[in-house]
Amino acid sequence: METPLTPLEFARRAQRLYSDREGVVDGELRFTFGEFLKRCDRWSTALQSLGVGQGDRVAYIAPNTHAHLEAYYAVPQIGAVLVPINFRLKPEDFAYIINHCGARAVCAHPDHLEAIDEIRDQISAVEVFVALEGSGDRWLDYERILASHDPEYEPVEISESDLITINYTSGTTARPKGVMITHRNAYINIMGTLAQHHLSPADRYLWTLPMFHANGWTFTWINTARGMTHVCLPKVEPGAIYQLIKEEGITMFCAAPTVLISIANAPEKLREGAPRGVRLFTAGAPPAAATIELIEKDLGWELTHVYGLTETAPLITVCEPRPEHQVLSIEERSKIKARQGVELVSSGEVRVVDEKGLEVAADGSTLGEITVRGNVVMAGYYNDPEATAAAIKDGWFHSGDAAVVHPDGYVEIRDRFKDVIISGGENISSVELEGCLLTHPAVQETAVVGMPHEKWGESPHAFVVLKEDAQATEDELKEHVRSHLAHFKTPQAVSFVHELPKTATGKVQKYVLRQHEPGIATQ
Amino acid sequence: METPLTPLEFARRAQRLYSDREGVVDGELRFTFGEFLKRCDRWSTALQSLGVGQGDRVAYIAPNTHAHLEAYYAVPQIGAVLVPINFRLKPEDFAYIINHCGARAVCAHPDHLEAIDEIRDQISAVEVFVALEGSGDRWLDYERILASHDPEYEPVEISESDLITINYTSGTTARPKGVMITHRNAYINIMGTLAQHHLSPADRYLWTLPMFHANGWTFTWINTARGMTHVCLPKVEPGAIYQLIKEEGITMFCAAPTVLISIANAPEKLREGAPRGVRLFTAGAPPAAATIELIEKDLGWELTHVYGLTETAPLITVCEPRPEHQVLSIEERSKIKARQGVELVSSGEVRVVDEKGLEVAADGSTLGEITVRGNVVMAGYYNDPEATAAAIKDGWFHSGDAAVVHPDGYVEIRDRFKDVIISGGENISSVELEGCLLTHPAVQETAVVGMPHEKWGESPHAFVVLKEDAQATEDELKEHVRSHLAHFKTPQAVSFVHELPKTATGKVQKYVLRQHEPGIATQ
Repeated sequence: METPLTPLEFARRAQRLYSDREGVVDGELRFTFGEFLKRCDRWSTALQSLGVGQGDRVAYIAPNTHAHLEAYYAVPQIGAVLVPINFRLKPEDFAYIINHCGARAVCAHPDHLEAIDEIRDQISAVEVFVALEGSGDRWLDYERILASHDPEYEPVEISESDLITINYTSGTTARPKGVMITHRNAYINIMGTLAQHHLSPADRYLWTLPMFHANGWTFTWINTARGMTHVCLPKVEPGAIYQLIKEEGITMFCAAPTVLISIANAPEKLREGAPRGVRLFTAGAPPAAATIELIEKDLGWELTHVYGLTETAPLITVCEPRPEHQVLSIEERSKIKARQGVELVSSGEVRVVDEKGLEVAADGSTLGEITVRGNVVMAGYYNDPEATAAAIKDGWFHSGDAAVVHPDGYVEIRDRFKDVIISGGENISSVELEGCLLTHPAVQETAVVGMPHEKWGESPHAFVVLKEDAQATEDELKEHVRSHLAHFKTPQAVSFVHELPKTATGKVQKYVLRQHEPGIATQ
Repeated sequence: METPLTPLEFARRAQRLYSDREGVVDGELRFTFGEFLKRCDRWSTALQSLGVGQGDRVAYIAPNTHAHLEAYYAVPQIGAVLVPINFRLKPEDFAYIINHCGARAVCAHPDHLEAIDEIRDQISAVEVFVALEGSGDRWLDYERILASHDPEYEPVEISESDLITINYTSGTTARPKGVMITHRNAYINIMGTLAQHHLSPADRYLWTLPMFHANGWTFTWINTARGMTHVCLPKVEPGAIYQLIKEEGITMFCAAPTVLISIANAPEKLREGAPRGVRLFTAGAPPAAATIELIEKDLGWELTHVYGLTETAPLITVCEPRPEHQVLSIEERSKIKARQGVELVSSGEVRVVDEKGLEVAADGSTLGEITVRGNVVMAGYYNDPEATAAAIKDGWFHSGDAAVVHPDGYVEIRDRFKDVIISGGENISSVELEGCLLTHPAVQETAVVGMPHEKWGESPHAFVVLKEDAQATEDELKEHVRSHLAHFKTPQAVSFVHELPKTATGKVQKYVLRQHEPGIATQ
């Protein structure tokens, strides 16, 4: 027998099994899974009565609230396609994405109504505007409409190859691209994540990662699949995180690199009394040894490094703990934990290949591109066959990430291919350089980019944020690198800055840094 | 992107990730996953050179050895269909199944060569006969052929809806039926089992459950998917089980009810020194409170009660532990652990329905039939459209198991529908009666069947195995039941027997008991 593989199956099951269990906590609000899913059903009916039909796109611009979470069920279960938009983008980006996906409805948190009102004349195809909290001029009131509809929406037939979401990439280098994720993509990723990680109805998940973001949206369904409580957190900062961990008995959350660092280095006052055994996923940058030590030894938490992309629904590797890792020193284990790791059972085949598509040697030093083929790979970029063809070649999705394979088979990303600095014919990994700079006691954060150089073609330029009250000179930092790495890797210039430009999820926007003239300090 | 959902994916991944890890232990033999999977590949090449092609059926009759395990990869990866046969059947059953599935090849363990030789003239369509150990007259030598072929077999294209195995039911009431399991069926069941249970490369699995049996064959792939070591065990008895648990560091195994009881009640000498934290699956009969206490408190092991059928690939429910169960007394927890439980994330929809197909009340007492629809349900019975139509009605597979639903949603099987005793118009659950008799201190094992009765139509007849050195009379046991249950449930007769007739996996064959005249003691 074949029935569609879809995350909606987990909602049906949760309704049946976990109806009386706490499903969602959002500030003062608490919903059981029964109440929460009933609200989703009411919103489905409301959307249908507002004219949203199968295949229509519904855009959301919202932080991590229960109303946003409801979208992940209400929209796809009527066969419509959810388009969760990064709420930190600018109004013109909102307009671009809303038009590009052809959204019929836009649902926005009160913080973003004004931004949408600014671009109303540019998004004239949108028929329905919904304010997710309160109401406003020209905005429908979510709660009022939801309450006035019954939960018996018109059922639709869903195929596993139908789209469940279109997730727009952050667009650091070009216009955002719409990643088409099918019900099957999402289902297989969820099952694989559950197979790899040990989750149960005893778990309570803290919503630190934005729901709109890769590996964020996947937990909108994972938690429900295992009867775990969703604890919403609209603003991510260490005080609120520690408070909820203690008060709500959080057992699991995801931490972007900056969140991870800020949690590990939080004041003793925040840390004290935090329960042990909390599990964290981190992705986006390898956690530093010092951070791992703070998280694992001091807090007694368990840190797992994972890797994926929006285009791969998202997880393709996990730094899988092995029994033999247990006996290693913290330094040795940190080296392993900094790796992106190995394929999940759900990933399909992951290969690191050279320009000819041949696998690179597992020697820990030969750079290649991470490629993958399997059921987690997107259906393509929405209305963009050219970008799709550039990304999926000969049946393999190309990640753009430059990595090495260690002799144990664990993959370690050295850079985005475009961030590899080619200086005098030598490859310099900006990540390696950053890792080296971070070992200097005065350095809090750093990003290294390649800048044009007359003699060498390109040369590395480091942007550095110093720790509060710490000091270091450009020469000191250059000397620090020179004493640890090959001389040709020494940065040509070091700029001290107050902060690094970042995307909504804490990734450094290197293209912004490249716009600086070399040598011009911004601090 | 869509690639076929198949357990073969786990072999590819294990070859890549776990190649140097211990994959299979079988007596003195030890293979890494690399060596083991290479052997599978060699056997694939050999099968192809012996004329086995895509879609051909290959029958196996073997205990839990590495050669049997190799079949689960070597056969399906060339697109052929594995037919693992219950080795405890009689030669005429072998002939029936081999002919019914139209096997092109038969591979047998030395213990069964003679049985096959007996029926050679009845299975004239079989072209290839392979002895899995040693050789014999008219038998090919597995190891010799395997060694003489290279691992580069001819690759074939496999669709997820292709058959991976045909598993014949035990045929207690009729001719065995061939359950057609697709690659997708098996894949989804494996992912669901992994999602529900916490397995990792640190685990070592003991092969107590026959590979040919539902939930046995599923671990041929599950262990490989998570890089767990397969430890083979050809003969199941407590001494060997405890020895391997201690010597091989076993962390997980499956225990049929009789195995569970014999392990729980094993002599102190065997039990001492056994590691704590071992996890067990049990199915087929609810574990008794006393057994749970012995397993959990004395041994410190973790017991999970699961339920499924060959037709459902196999798991459809699990007695999922919930945080609120932790605080219950052992008696209370035993009551819950005796339940088959709730849907797994992989099961699809499980419903307990009345004759009209409507769900019964979740009151813990209304009997209904367990039905399921989802991706774990078989493609049908091989060459038996009538039996298929009888089992899959209106899109739901009908299990034949009579169950109640408790207010917490947990399903509890009361009986096979055919084992419900209807006495004077009242339903009597033989399982309830058995449970009551087991609380008598002298009773080791029991089975209750309905016997024809002039006045009541049917009446319950208990067959009882007493504990060693314990004594009880028929009247004592009747009185025991009368003092605990409604009077009409008191057995009409009690027979004392040395042992109960059982299937290969420890299920009592009630049809054998029904052939006894009521009241005639066989001891």
